[in-house]
Amino acid sequence: MIHRISVLVGSLRRHSTARKIAINAIGSFPDDFDARLVEIRKLPLYDFDFDDPSVTDKQTPPEYTRFRETIKASAGVLFVTPENNRTVPACLKNAVDIGSKPNADVAWTGLPAGIISHSVGRMGGYSSQKNLRLALSYFDMPAPGQPEVHIGRSHEVVAANGLFVDESTDAFVSDYVTRFADLVRASARG
Amino acid sequence: MIHRISVLVGSLRRHSTARKIAINAIGSFPDDFDARLVEIRKLPLYDFDFDDPSVTDKQTPPEYTRFRETIKASAGVLFVTPENNRTVPACLKNAVDIGSKPNADVAWTGLPAGIISHSVGRMGGYSSQKNLRLALSYFDMPAPGQPEVHIGRSHEVVAANGLFVDESTDAFVSDYVTRFADLVRASARG
Amino acid sequence: MIHRISVLVGSLRRHSTARKIAINAIGSFPDDFDARLVEIRKLPLYDFDFDDPSVTDKQTPPEYTRFRETIKASAGVLFVTPENNRTVPACLKNAVDIGSKPNADVAWTGLPAGIISHSVGRMGGYSSQKNLRLALSYFDMPAPGQPEVHIGRSHEVVAANGLFVDESTDAFVSDYVTRFADLVRASARG
Amino acid sequence: MIHRISVLVGSLRRHSTARKIAINAIGSFPDDFDARLVEIRKLPLYDFDFDDPSVTDKQTPPEYTRFRETIKASAGVLFVTPENNRTVPACLKNAVDIGSKPNADVAWTGLPAGIISHSVGRMGGYSSQKNLRLALSYFDMPAPGQPEVHIGRSHEVVAANGLFVDESTDAFVSDYVTRFADLVRASARG
Repeated sequence: MIHRISVLVGSLRRHSTARKIAINAIGSFPDDFDARLVEIRKLPLYDFDFDDPSVTDKQTPPEYTRFRETIKASAGVLFVTPENNRTVPACLKNAVDIGSKPNADVAWTGLPAGIISHSVGRMGGYSSQKNLRLALSYFDMPAPGQPEVHIGRSHEVVAANGLFVDESTDAFVSDYVTRFADLVRASARG
Repeated sequence: MIHRISVLVGSLRRHSTARKIAINAIGSFPDDFDARLVEIRKLPLYDFDFDDPSVTDKQTPPEYTRFRETIKASAGVLFVTPENNRTVPACLKNAVDIGSKPNADVAWTGLPAGIISHSVGRMGGYSSQKNLRLALSYFDMPAPGQPEVHIGRSHEVVAANGLFVDESTDAFVSDYVTRFADLVRASARG
Repeated sequence: MIHRISVLVGSLRRHSTARKIAINAIGSFPDDFDARLVEIRKLPLYDFDFDDPSVTDKQTPPEYTRFRETIKASAGVLFVTPENNRTVPACLKNAVDIGSKPNADVAWTGLPAGIISHSVGRMGGYSSQKNLRLALSYFDMPAPGQPEVHIGRSHEVVAANGLFVDESTDAFVSDYVTRFADLVRASARG
Repeated sequence: MIHRISVLVGSLRRHSTARKIAINAIGSFPDDFDARLVEIRKLPLYDFDFDDPSVTDKQTPPEYTRFRETIKASAGVLFVTPENNRTVPACLKNAVDIGSKPNADVAWTGLPAGIISHSVGRMGGYSSQKNLRLALSYFDMPAPGQPEVHIGRSHEVVAANGLFVDESTDAFVSDYVTRFADLVRASARG
């Protein structure tokens, strides 16, 4: 059994650190996992009217439908995100909101979630991660317990070749991915 | 002296309750104020590359520039917002992020902020408001003190004619607008 | 196998609503559970010096030791708490801090937690519950998922005879206790 | 005019870092200020029954009354606190709760507040400070804006002689105390 994991990156920047960290994390999944980046750049800003059947001049955009189907077909979701203004970046909040509708068919419900936050400061996106967890707890998404991954001084952690500069960062992220994978397997059995 | 206030609505829904509440609030400002809705629907999802001079194939969108100039020309900002998944709706987070860049010229810094949150539940968007305050505190935006405005069961508060059903809601919102206006005047003097 | 549950009440008031709710919750546990109130009134205010072997004129108070042993002998902990000033009441925070020491032997680690918050307002202690969860997540304590229990207008929910006024409150609390009991059983097997 | 400042330390440890930082901060106040440590060690755990006139066998403890009078006689309050389990230490939460009662005469209301948090980790007590602000915002206590003071790796910041190891820490704390003092003077005029 292959577990499909959707990996969401909370930055649209082409060479974002979050994307680089995500790619390293993807490489750390065990063999029975298929983890892939899910692009969120082209998702139109969430508008409830799109999902309101009584609004006849607006239709649900195909990007929403595709995104929701991708999430629902996943066995788990890994979020890798920086912090913008102490909270989740707009592009990621947009994906979260889109996946949360319609109310009768929330894409996120119960899916295991992994979270890796980072920032150039020492806090490592702590506040952004807390903020994301607040939303995810609403969907009853289980997440691995302690320790949480907050990568500080993140502009220094990835080398020019795309790999982590320090083996310790690599080991820490790999260990987290392993714990997340265990959680996904346990949920799949459950 | 006329104080220009930018009013931001955290919902793109055409007939959103937030917009109706905002319009009522606009009507409560004193005569020396000019409060106006600032539309955030067409702001492209925030991408740092847009503001990075080293990225030559992306330019700052004119919508960003216009939005930032509007905010900077304001004497204060009133936010009226629902709650999506316990946090700020994506469209409003997007506006917050856009106004926060570039780092050397943050549009929000120091501007007085008023906040009205609402929800159909009993909490009145409490968590969304807290979440927004977390971002605004980062920009050192003063806000009126207690009591805060969290409008619960908000689907019942606005009548078909667009006015508040209960006089008490009207009085509460008006009183908040008055306190916010006082804060704006005090900041203008300061 | 009988599962011992420690029930902590976040109020020292003799006739506190939290205690009344706790007693009702205790009555809802299944037959293979033994749930008991654990008194936190006499726990001396937490002082790190008590647990510092290099501080020779202060010893760990016997109340601390007894409390920690009680928690460690539990299969789970149910917290029933009001909200004081938007956060956890001091008496409950004191118990949390005492159980968190010494670092090498944290009493709480990994224990399933149930949380019931209440307030006389409409929010039902939402902020207090979030605050408590922040601490508990640090100890990697699993908790039942949605829906969470926030009892609003709590001064009206318990009748003079100590039982819930409304059957719906009773059903809601019972259902939560059942989900919590399931979580405890699953952890015990784990 | 001399402004009296009450300085509260969120640790009962005799040689706590918070107390050492507080003493350094006290030394940074301008000449028209009189800043003093207010001890919170002997405040009995907060119990609402103490303030309930209908409870005849419990009286408000004299420690509560003295503490409340000290706070009310202050022109501002400086909090210096570590973080325990991601939230405010029990001893400080106890002081906050005691000062918040009775409802008709809250000691804290409207008093300017300064906050310095610290931790041995890199976060500098960020979460504890946010948690304290949540309570203080309820009392409408103004606080200096950005930057906030979160002192990380705090076990290394104070030398054996009690002074800050680095001049930069000293300058940062002094600057914050100056901004806090300005806020207190402005409130006194207000």
